Amino acid sequence: MTKRYIREARPRFEHLLAELVELPSVSMDPAHAADVRKTATVAAQVLASFGAEARLIETEGYPVVWGGWTVDRRAPIVTIYNHLDVQPAQEPEWTRRPFAFQKQDGLYRGRGATDDKGPALTALLAAKYAVEQGLPLNIHVLWELEEEIGSPHFAQALQPRHRIPAPDSVLVSDTIWIARNKPAMAYGLRGLLAVKMTLRTGRVDAHSGLTGGAARNPLAELAAVAAACVDAKTGRVTIPGFYDDVVPPTKGEIADFLASGFEVARFKKAYGLESLRATQPAEILRRIWATPTFEVHGLAGGYQGPGVKTVVPAYGELKVSMRLVSHQKPERIFARLKRFVAGVNPDVKVEAQGMLQPYLGPRTGPYAEAAKRAMVAGFGKAPAMIREGGSIGAVVTMQRAWRAPILFMGLSLPEHGYHAPNEYFDWGQASGGMKALSAYFAELAAMKRRA
Amino acid sequence: MTKRYIREARPRFEHLLAELVELPSVSMDPAHAADVRKTATVAAQVLASFGAEARLIETEGYPVVWGGWTVDRRAPIVTIYNHLDVQPAQEPEWTRRPFAFQKQDGLYRGRGATDDKGPALTALLAAKYAVEQGLPLNIHVLWELEEEIGSPHFAQALQPRHRIPAPDSVLVSDTIWIARNKPAMAYGLRGLLAVKMTLRTGRVDAHSGLTGGAARNPLAELAAVAAACVDAKTGRVTIPGFYDDVVPPTKGEIADFLASGFEVARFKKAYGLESLRATQPAEILRRIWATPTFEVHGLAGGYQGPGVKTVVPAYGELKVSMRLVSHQKPERIFARLKRFVAGVNPDVKVEAQGMLQPYLGPRTGPYAEAAKRAMVAGFGKAPAMIREGGSIGAVVTMQRAWRAPILFMGLSLPEHGYHAPNEYFDWGQASGGMKALSAYFAELAAMKRRA
Repeated sequence: MTKRYIREARPRFEHLLAELVELPSVSMDPAHAADVRKTATVAAQVLASFGAEARLIETEGYPVVWGGWTVDRRAPIVTIYNHLDVQPAQEPEWTRRPFAFQKQDGLYRGRGATDDKGPALTALLAAKYAVEQGLPLNIHVLWELEEEIGSPHFAQALQPRHRIPAPDSVLVSDTIWIARNKPAMAYGLRGLLAVKMTLRTGRVDAHSGLTGGAARNPLAELAAVAAACVDAKTGRVTIPGFYDDVVPPTKGEIADFLASGFEVARFKKAYGLESLRATQPAEILRRIWATPTFEVHGLAGGYQGPGVKTVVPAYGELKVSMRLVSHQKPERIFARLKRFVAGVNPDVKVEAQGMLQPYLGPRTGPYAEAAKRAMVAGFGKAPAMIREGGSIGAVVTMQRAWRAPILFMGLSLPEHGYHAPNEYFDWGQASGGMKALSAYFAELAAMKRRA
Repeated sequence: MTKRYIREARPRFEHLLAELVELPSVSMDPAHAADVRKTATVAAQVLASFGAEARLIETEGYPVVWGGWTVDRRAPIVTIYNHLDVQPAQEPEWTRRPFAFQKQDGLYRGRGATDDKGPALTALLAAKYAVEQGLPLNIHVLWELEEEIGSPHFAQALQPRHRIPAPDSVLVSDTIWIARNKPAMAYGLRGLLAVKMTLRTGRVDAHSGLTGGAARNPLAELAAVAAACVDAKTGRVTIPGFYDDVVPPTKGEIADFLASGFEVARFKKAYGLESLRATQPAEILRRIWATPTFEVHGLAGGYQGPGVKTVVPAYGELKVSMRLVSHQKPERIFARLKRFVAGVNPDVKVEAQGMLQPYLGPRTGPYAEAAKRAMVAGFGKAPAMIREGGSIGAVVTMQRAWRAPILFMGLSLPEHGYHAPNEYFDWGQASGGMKALSAYFAELAAMKRRA
C-alpha cells in the first residue's frame, strides 16, 4: 500500500468513522431500533460510494449488509465480516458523551470506535485499495447488526435464497490483541453449552421449623449436583467422558500463546480478579483459551435478600454453562451431562438453553501463513497465534454454511476499552491494519482458486 | 369449672375477642405501630377490668403487658405467657376483611383469633375463675407484642429493674394440636443457628468467555461447601461432631408423637410438599421435631433471572441454618462448622446470623402430670406429648431468666389457619381450654411451693 493512499485515506476514514460512531446502533436496546436500521442504510450507502455493489438482507431481526466488488468471476472470493452494532454505553465512568465522535492526537473516541466500526472501515479502505490495484480477487463485505446480542438472525441471512456467494475464505476483523505492539491473530474459539437444571419438591416455600428435616431441600440437592459435576477449586469437570474428545493444545501452541504479551497481573486487573485457579501464564492461557469449563452462574430459589430467612424452598434452578473446545460436540456433552445427573439425582430436570460448536481454524497452512506475512507487512512484527475463550455465533454459522477457512485479523488493543467505557480506536492501528489487510488481499489474489 | 361460669363467660369472652381482633396489631408492619401500641393499652385495661394489677413494661420496641393477681405471698406463682401481636393478613385467599370480627355458629373469625388472642382470653377467663375460687395461687399474665417478629426486646422486659416476679412455673398457650379431638402438649422446641457464608473472588462479575477456567467461581465453591456439610438426599449432616450432643428421642417419646393424630398425607398437603425424605410417620416426626437439620435457604450471587447468563460471579453468599435439639449448643456447633469449613475452603467467611438454644421441658413429673390431668378435665382425653420443630425465642428467654418449668397447653387446631388466611378460633376449644386451664390452676394450687 502506497504512502500516498494511506495519507489520502485518513480524512475519508475519519469522516466515515465519525458518521458511524454518531449513530448509536445499540442492538440490545429497543429504544435504539431506528438508529440500528439507519446504520444499516448508511453502511450500504457508504459501500455504494466506494463503487461497490450493496444491499440489505432482511431477516426477522435487523438486516445484514452485504456488498463488494466482483472483478473477475474466475478469481477467488474473500468475505470480510465485521459488525456495526455496538454495546450500550451507560457506564458512569464515561467522561464524555459516548456517541459524540471526538478526534484528538490520532485517537478516535466514541462507543463502537474499536468494536467494530473502526476495524470495519479499515478493512473497507484496504479492500478499496486492492480493487484499485486491479487485483484478481473478489472482495465481499458482510456487516452484521446483531453481533452484540448473539447473532440471533445471522443464519437466516446466509440462506441460499438470499444469494450471498460462498467465499473461498473469510476474514473476521473483530478481535483484540493481548498487548500493544504485539500483533495477535486468533485461530480458535470455544463453544458453549448452557444448561438449566431445575428441581421442584413442593408447591410453595415452607418454614424449616414446621417441615425441616422431612421436607426435601431443592437448593441443597442442586448444590450437590453442581459439586458432583465440577471440582470447584481446580475447575476439573467430573462428568464421565467430558474430556474424551478434547484435543489439547500442543507445546507449540502454548509457546505461541505466551508470545502474545500476556501478563498475569494485567489480566487480573483488567477483569477485577482477586485470585485465580492457576498462577503460571502458560497454565492460565491454556485454561482460558484451550480448555473446557463448567461454570455455575446462579442458583435461583429460596431467599436471596439480606441476612438469612429460614425458608425451605419449594423450587431451585441451577444455571450452568460449559465452554467447549475442539473436538467436543455440545450435543454429545449434553447427553453425557444428562446421563450423569440422572444418576446423581433422577428428579432433577436438565434442559439445554443454548449450544455453540467450538471453532478451530487454520493456524498453519497457506491462509494462515499469508495472514502472518500480511501482519508483518502492516505492523513490522509476526503475530502471536492465539485463541479466544469466548464463542462467536456468526463464525460457527459461516463455517457451517461455507466450509471455508476463517482467519481472524483483529486490530483492537486492550487499552481501547472494548465493551468498556471511554472506548476509542487509533490511527496507528487503522493505518497498520490497512497495510496488513491490503497485503493479505494481495496474498489471496496470488493464490489459486480453491477446487 | 362450673357450667354456670362457662355460660356466663361466653358473652364476655366473645366481646373481648371482638375488641382485640378488630385491633390490627401487625407487629411486622410499621404502618400498624399505633394499632400495636393501642392493643397493649387495651389489654392492660382488660386486665384491670378483671380486678388484676396491670402495667406496661416499656422496651426499645413495643411494650410487654404484665399483670395478675397476688392472692397470697406464700403461694406459688404461675405466669401465663401469650402474645397479642398478629401475622400480616395480605393473602389473596381471605374471603372477608381479616380485621372485621365475625361470630358465626360458635366460630370466631378474624386475624389473630387463634394466634394468639383467643387462647390469651381463654387463659384469662380460666385465671379469673381460679381467683374467684380463692385458690392459693398467684396467677400472673405476660402478654408480648413482638412474638411474630422473633421477640427482639422480650429479654429487656425480664430485666430485674422491671420487677417481674420470678414464677414457679410458666404456662405457654400458643401451640397447635396435630389433629382435632386429639389434645397435644409440646414439651420441646428446636434451637436455631443461622449462618451466612460468603466468598469474594473478584471485584465485579466477569464474562466466562474472557476469564472462564482461570477465574475462580465463588458459587461453585460455595455449592461444594454446602455439599460437604450435608447429604442433601438424606439430610444427614456431615460436619464432624455435629451429632455429638444430640439426645435422641426415646421409643416412648416416638410412641407419644404417633398418638398426636399425625397423618403423612395431611402433612404433605398442609405444606404443599410433593415428596419427603422419609415415608413412615414415626421417622417423619422424629425428623421434624427431634432431629437437627442443615438447610440451604439461598445462594445469592451471579445471575438469578430467566434463562442462563454466562457470568463468572465475583461474589457468592450461601444462606444456611441449622435447627438444633437438646443438648446441642449453638455456640459449639458454630465453632465446629467454622473449623470444618476452614478445612474445606479457607477463603470462605463464616458468620453467625442468629442463635437460639433448643428447649426441652418436662414431659413427666408433677407439672407435666398435672397438665395432662387438666387436659383430660377440659377435653376428655389425655394429651399426646409432642415436640415442635420451630424455635420460640421468648421461651428460651424465660427459661434462662427463671429456670422454672415451662408447660405448653396450646388450644389451636390445624384447621384454624394459624399464620394462614381465613383464621378462626372456636368456642369448643375456648370452653374446653377454660376447663383445662382452671383445672391446671387447681393442680398448681395444690402443689407445695418450690424450694
